[in-house]
Amino acid sequence: MRYQDLISKDVGGAISGGLDSCTATAWLTEKGARAHCFVVDLGQPDETNLDDVPKRMLACGAVEAAVIPGQEALAEAGLQVIQSQARYEGGYWNTTGIARYVTTALIIRELEKRGIDVLFHGATGRGNDQVRFQLAANMLAPGIQVYAPWRDPAFIETFGGRAEMLAYCAERKLPVRATLEKPYSTDANFLGLTHEAGQLESLCTPAAHVEPGMGVWAWDAPDKPETVTIRWEAGVPVAINGEHTSLVETFHQANRIGGQNGVGIGVHVVENRFVGIKSRGVYEAPGMEILGQSYAYLLQLVLDRRARDVYDALSRQISTQIYQGYWYDLATTTALAALKPLLPLMTGTIVLRLYKGNIFFEGAEDTPHSLYSSDIASMERIGSFDHADAEGFLKVLGVSARNFAERQFQALEREI
Amino acid sequence: MRYQDLISKDVGGAISGGLDSCTATAWLTEKGARAHCFVVDLGQPDETNLDDVPKRMLACGAVEAAVIPGQEALAEAGLQVIQSQARYEGGYWNTTGIARYVTTALIIRELEKRGIDVLFHGATGRGNDQVRFQLAANMLAPGIQVYAPWRDPAFIETFGGRAEMLAYCAERKLPVRATLEKPYSTDANFLGLTHEAGQLESLCTPAAHVEPGMGVWAWDAPDKPETVTIRWEAGVPVAINGEHTSLVETFHQANRIGGQNGVGIGVHVVENRFVGIKSRGVYEAPGMEILGQSYAYLLQLVLDRRARDVYDALSRQISTQIYQGYWYDLATTTALAALKPLLPLMTGTIVLRLYKGNIFFEGAEDTPHSLYSSDIASMERIGSFDHADAEGFLKVLGVSARNFAERQFQALEREI
Amino acid sequence: MRYQDLISKDVGGAISGGLDSCTATAWLTEKGARAHCFVVDLGQPDETNLDDVPKRMLACGAVEAAVIPGQEALAEAGLQVIQSQARYEGGYWNTTGIARYVTTALIIRELEKRGIDVLFHGATGRGNDQVRFQLAANMLAPGIQVYAPWRDPAFIETFGGRAEMLAYCAERKLPVRATLEKPYSTDANFLGLTHEAGQLESLCTPAAHVEPGMGVWAWDAPDKPETVTIRWEAGVPVAINGEHTSLVETFHQANRIGGQNGVGIGVHVVENRFVGIKSRGVYEAPGMEILGQSYAYLLQLVLDRRARDVYDALSRQISTQIYQGYWYDLATTTALAALKPLLPLMTGTIVLRLYKGNIFFEGAEDTPHSLYSSDIASMERIGSFDHADAEGFLKVLGVSARNFAERQFQALEREI
Amino acid sequence: MRYQDLISKDVGGAISGGLDSCTATAWLTEKGARAHCFVVDLGQPDETNLDDVPKRMLACGAVEAAVIPGQEALAEAGLQVIQSQARYEGGYWNTTGIARYVTTALIIRELEKRGIDVLFHGATGRGNDQVRFQLAANMLAPGIQVYAPWRDPAFIETFGGRAEMLAYCAERKLPVRATLEKPYSTDANFLGLTHEAGQLESLCTPAAHVEPGMGVWAWDAPDKPETVTIRWEAGVPVAINGEHTSLVETFHQANRIGGQNGVGIGVHVVENRFVGIKSRGVYEAPGMEILGQSYAYLLQLVLDRRARDVYDALSRQISTQIYQGYWYDLATTTALAALKPLLPLMTGTIVLRLYKGNIFFEGAEDTPHSLYSSDIASMERIGSFDHADAEGFLKVLGVSARNFAERQFQALEREI
Repeated sequence: MRYQDLISKDVGGAISGGLDSCTATAWLTEKGARAHCFVVDLGQPDETNLDDVPKRMLACGAVEAAVIPGQEALAEAGLQVIQSQARYEGGYWNTTGIARYVTTALIIRELEKRGIDVLFHGATGRGNDQVRFQLAANMLAPGIQVYAPWRDPAFIETFGGRAEMLAYCAERKLPVRATLEKPYSTDANFLGLTHEAGQLESLCTPAAHVEPGMGVWAWDAPDKPETVTIRWEAGVPVAINGEHTSLVETFHQANRIGGQNGVGIGVHVVENRFVGIKSRGVYEAPGMEILGQSYAYLLQLVLDRRARDVYDALSRQISTQIYQGYWYDLATTTALAALKPLLPLMTGTIVLRLYKGNIFFEGAEDTPHSLYSSDIASMERIGSFDHADAEGFLKVLGVSARNFAERQFQALEREI
Repeated sequence: MRYQDLISKDVGGAISGGLDSCTATAWLTEKGARAHCFVVDLGQPDETNLDDVPKRMLACGAVEAAVIPGQEALAEAGLQVIQSQARYEGGYWNTTGIARYVTTALIIRELEKRGIDVLFHGATGRGNDQVRFQLAANMLAPGIQVYAPWRDPAFIETFGGRAEMLAYCAERKLPVRATLEKPYSTDANFLGLTHEAGQLESLCTPAAHVEPGMGVWAWDAPDKPETVTIRWEAGVPVAINGEHTSLVETFHQANRIGGQNGVGIGVHVVENRFVGIKSRGVYEAPGMEILGQSYAYLLQLVLDRRARDVYDALSRQISTQIYQGYWYDLATTTALAALKPLLPLMTGTIVLRLYKGNIFFEGAEDTPHSLYSSDIASMERIGSFDHADAEGFLKVLGVSARNFAERQFQALEREI
Repeated sequence: MRYQDLISKDVGGAISGGLDSCTATAWLTEKGARAHCFVVDLGQPDETNLDDVPKRMLACGAVEAAVIPGQEALAEAGLQVIQSQARYEGGYWNTTGIARYVTTALIIRELEKRGIDVLFHGATGRGNDQVRFQLAANMLAPGIQVYAPWRDPAFIETFGGRAEMLAYCAERKLPVRATLEKPYSTDANFLGLTHEAGQLESLCTPAAHVEPGMGVWAWDAPDKPETVTIRWEAGVPVAINGEHTSLVETFHQANRIGGQNGVGIGVHVVENRFVGIKSRGVYEAPGMEILGQSYAYLLQLVLDRRARDVYDALSRQISTQIYQGYWYDLATTTALAALKPLLPLMTGTIVLRLYKGNIFFEGAEDTPHSLYSSDIASMERIGSFDHADAEGFLKVLGVSARNFAERQFQALEREI
Repeated sequence: MRYQDLISKDVGGAISGGLDSCTATAWLTEKGARAHCFVVDLGQPDETNLDDVPKRMLACGAVEAAVIPGQEALAEAGLQVIQSQARYEGGYWNTTGIARYVTTALIIRELEKRGIDVLFHGATGRGNDQVRFQLAANMLAPGIQVYAPWRDPAFIETFGGRAEMLAYCAERKLPVRATLEKPYSTDANFLGLTHEAGQLESLCTPAAHVEPGMGVWAWDAPDKPETVTIRWEAGVPVAINGEHTSLVETFHQANRIGGQNGVGIGVHVVENRFVGIKSRGVYEAPGMEILGQSYAYLLQLVLDRRARDVYDALSRQISTQIYQGYWYDLATTTALAALKPLLPLMTGTIVLRLYKGNIFFEGAEDTPHSLYSSDIASMERIGSFDHADAEGFLKVLGVSARNFAERQFQALEREI
């Protein structure tokens, strides 16, 4: 899709309010499109006043601009990420990925109300976000077209980089707040921050080069452990330190407690983008880390070996699906359904000890569906099976072990 | 197998030199067996002088007692654990598990030299170690029988617990150093310590209840970050901080550096034992953690998405195989073979920043087979594919997304 | 558990009515137990008159004997096997496995009504069925003990094999119908027959040695193709050849049609039993084969690539769970839940051509949620994406392919 | 890439000699390119005389045209498909997929000899083959560009379909043998035939609509079973019916025997193409079916449960990799390496009974590494473990089953 297709048309934008948003909106308006700009309130930690954004966008030529409330939807989505432990390639809590779906779904609702059939966004032609916007929009509203200025030759030719955009905005006196220098790029919502590009592109730049936005680095955290108690009921965190709160507030509070102790600040991942390129990110997600780790401890109590096999495979699949843009498709729907029967079992109180970036296990209580039993686990003599039963157990296992020894082991020529 | 089968027979013991070893050796000797006691030198951090052990065992009645060198074999095995990232249920570096195979293999070699066809060990009838000893022995030497006093009714009836064993040894003036009180039980080798049982059986006992044996808790570590540089060549750590060492010495040095910074100290896992019981362990493995994490960072550079899919599945399988006693079987042999082609790619220098229990990524250099390229990853305009190519890419993906939207999505009745 | 624990107790038996049932019931009665014998009506194709069984059991000393209706429950269970395509090790439709759960659940209900707390069964100490009976009973009614004569030394010593049992029954004039010669052993229900042991133990015995019980061998089937039309609605087969029937009748009819064409007759599998032993079975399941294959064709239309990844992994896990005795546990519950969202999509009419053991695809119609579209698939020019879009698609893919070529391929030293 | 980039350049074509080949070669020549045309001898069953092809291509304007021998390379590749049992989505033996790699590798060797840096092929912009050509070329020779006329707007505009191509060739009197009517499109090599498109695009067209090219439909096969004996040594089929042959000849002979019995003729799969589109294929692969199934029977004897878990996962991954164009990448290299240790175990003689499309197991002999043992499997009393040992085994398993019952089962609210 190219700008020529948008002349005299209403187009709805998923915008953040930054330099890209201003430039694209002004440029599209000049080209003859009528831009409706929507910024979704995801509790962006780096945005002091979200209500300023619509004013800026109107100043850039938008015919309409509004803030859409999205914190509750994001909290629900974030909870599903925790319930499925969907960390991408082992480390990243998928915080930007999951937020793209919330943004797309909420904005599409607005577009449909207004009969607008084009969605535009400012993601580049090399990243994952363009894929998420596109696939989510295609799945939720196949009749809506997606337009990305950064994939439009005319836009790219005009704007080679930040310098040209800043010049363009300055010339038109558009209310941008960006400056030329920016050491790296950050995407923000209350689930987490993702930092990438710029100086982070060199792998010689330490993760610690990032200035945290949701807390402090471990070395700047208090030199005193802090315990935090999280109460889970049927898979939902209903109280932190005994205080019952809404899910949104739970995330904010977990961010506060985690962030000030340096927890979840500065995770570095060189990851495989959907388009097959490796990229390097440094992540912050203090609340996800605390809630997620406490959920992981609860899972350790609830999942037997076979259930863990099923769970781990699904967790991995869900994580990839979120990352790659497939949150709404059949595979994700199927995999998420598998996690539903677990929820009634996921009740318990988990106590964590936080200390300068670390999370330690401090205790678990009131876990009615825990399979852990100190009686059963005890190595001492009395218990639920006779130690001598193990003799039979091992004799049974030994049959196949010896059969293997006699018929295959030597042929394998494996070093011992 | 029962003690009656051992009368007047030579039996070879895998012993540690502790209370169980002394009691079992003395008891078996009294029952008429000729005990040959072997302790394998695995660099046990809790054992000040391993050479004392044979003396103690001879005093307990053994007809022969010896220390068998095992550090090199253990280091090789530990390296395979790192190369396969085989952490059990997400956290435990399988340090005890892998060591059981080294011990069994080395002792069986001694038994075969002497024509002894019974192996005895002191593992209980409820844990994983009995399974590992049994299966490894059955696979390596199917003609050898395995005897476990703790599965023999006569032994269990005589010795209900530590008190009876201490009394038995005291009565016979056997040189045991154990005392009645022991807050929990520890298994040790230079790859790691595993603490379990005793007071740790209650989940109200914090992980921090453990007194570290390979380092300090995070709060006792220096309040200053330390960087460590690890050089990998073809999958082998050849130098730490520029100093080339043997593999054994590399592990010891990594333990020292990690331990003093509180890294890898106090990982808590409630895990699924092979016999289906949940047990709780607190783990120390500072060297494995440092080497393992630096290897993980290197893998992030080398594995593309598809290779990671293959790798992660194998990693999980290898981990379970080690944990459950199947290190030598066909499945492990197969899975380990898959990792061999990766090794030539696993060359690079990884720099870590350690700080009070944390590991942060500080940098990566000299990684000739890294797929990461800041040129390719760059979001800026010039690069190896045109941003406009992404338009075609997304249009292709969009076909199936819209097809899904039109034919399936509504029928799913999924909440958005 | 041993017979001594059963003296003067009420015990409930899961019995088939054969030689084992008669012998065990008579023997237990002689030893002083009060046997309540239950045979579940699973539409056993080899049993001409199930109502005779209680009479025989009473003659053997049972204090009570009854037939419990189980066909509907079995049909429901069989449908779940089809919906999850849970074939064990690629070939066997798990027909005996799934039936054990139905039997156990139904009989436990009877035991609970009567306050009986021991279940006995005639499965041997080497097979899978003992595991299924035990685990299902333990999960459904943990207070109930399971007694297996074939694991009781007293019983085994008395009855070494069929000859001793026949002699025992003859001596007591018990109404057994068995004869000494039996070429192999068969388990039967209307989902399928499993033949094993006896002459089948030699791998030189062809599969064709089996005399089919649910149809004919391919070479005895009519030399004329027959088409069969199966209508699926939301995952349920609601009509065969246009005729609407109950689920039970659908299975019977599918058996009839399949069996007479030699379909699903004589599948040979050398499989891994749960206890680690390999065993050889020859299977019949004509109805499962027809219904299952038509469901497979429908799945081909509905599952996209990612959904198939999730589905195939779950299918494999469910199959193993059924086979190993874990139908009721958390893993199975979780995995089955994942398949629920698929059901509303599984609507369509599938036409098969049957011919002498073969199933061929004849056509598919009325499949509203099929992703297949001849318009989209067409290689011709006009369609939903421009052929030139593929150029961008491939250029994007090519970036990582070339990056691999330059940085890794040569180091792999792989033969081309 | 567009034709404008090829003017006055040498370009190397992977051609079949059909209508597309002629048209593309003539058109490119007219546009000013110098076409070198290579057809690889893959034992195409539908091509009576491959040596005619170069003559036709020269007549179309090619500056060079040659047949490259490829049968041995294809046989080696086909064997790897069998050794990994890499059937795509459960049915298709990946015969076209694997052949694309052989073709690409062999032709690239020719291009490199001549210093040619453009490869062209006639695959369309909607299928899988374009992906395989592109990725294989990019990986083997990243400096070579790939040109596909069917993705070049100028070519597509000129040639809308077969009619325009036929007219173009007729006008120029080019030696094409194609006619306007063609019920479907076929790709052929001696591993198999794939039929798709045309009348097969309608799912109302039965699979039987296809006219077999490698044998007969089941109903046309002889009404008499035929047995075939295949001898495997270390994973290689060294003899059929006792006659030792080369690998190439083994495939041809297996095709002959299978094809005349209707085996492997007419497998229907609606599959997920890489580009996300579903397509329908009807397949023939009689030799792959016979050799592959006999290998499957051998695997049943050799793989224990855990090895099968590893194997099945790898098999699935390899199959997808082949299908999607990634035969040469790191994931495939890794996965194939895992299968190497199995090969020394894969020795044995398998006898099959073929009958009108069916394969039945007839026997297995001389399988030194088979884990199957009729002694161990026997349900009779004497064997390698005491039936009473099973009591201990089950008691151990029962602990976790009952623990589950007491702590989780009711909360799951699952229907029984």
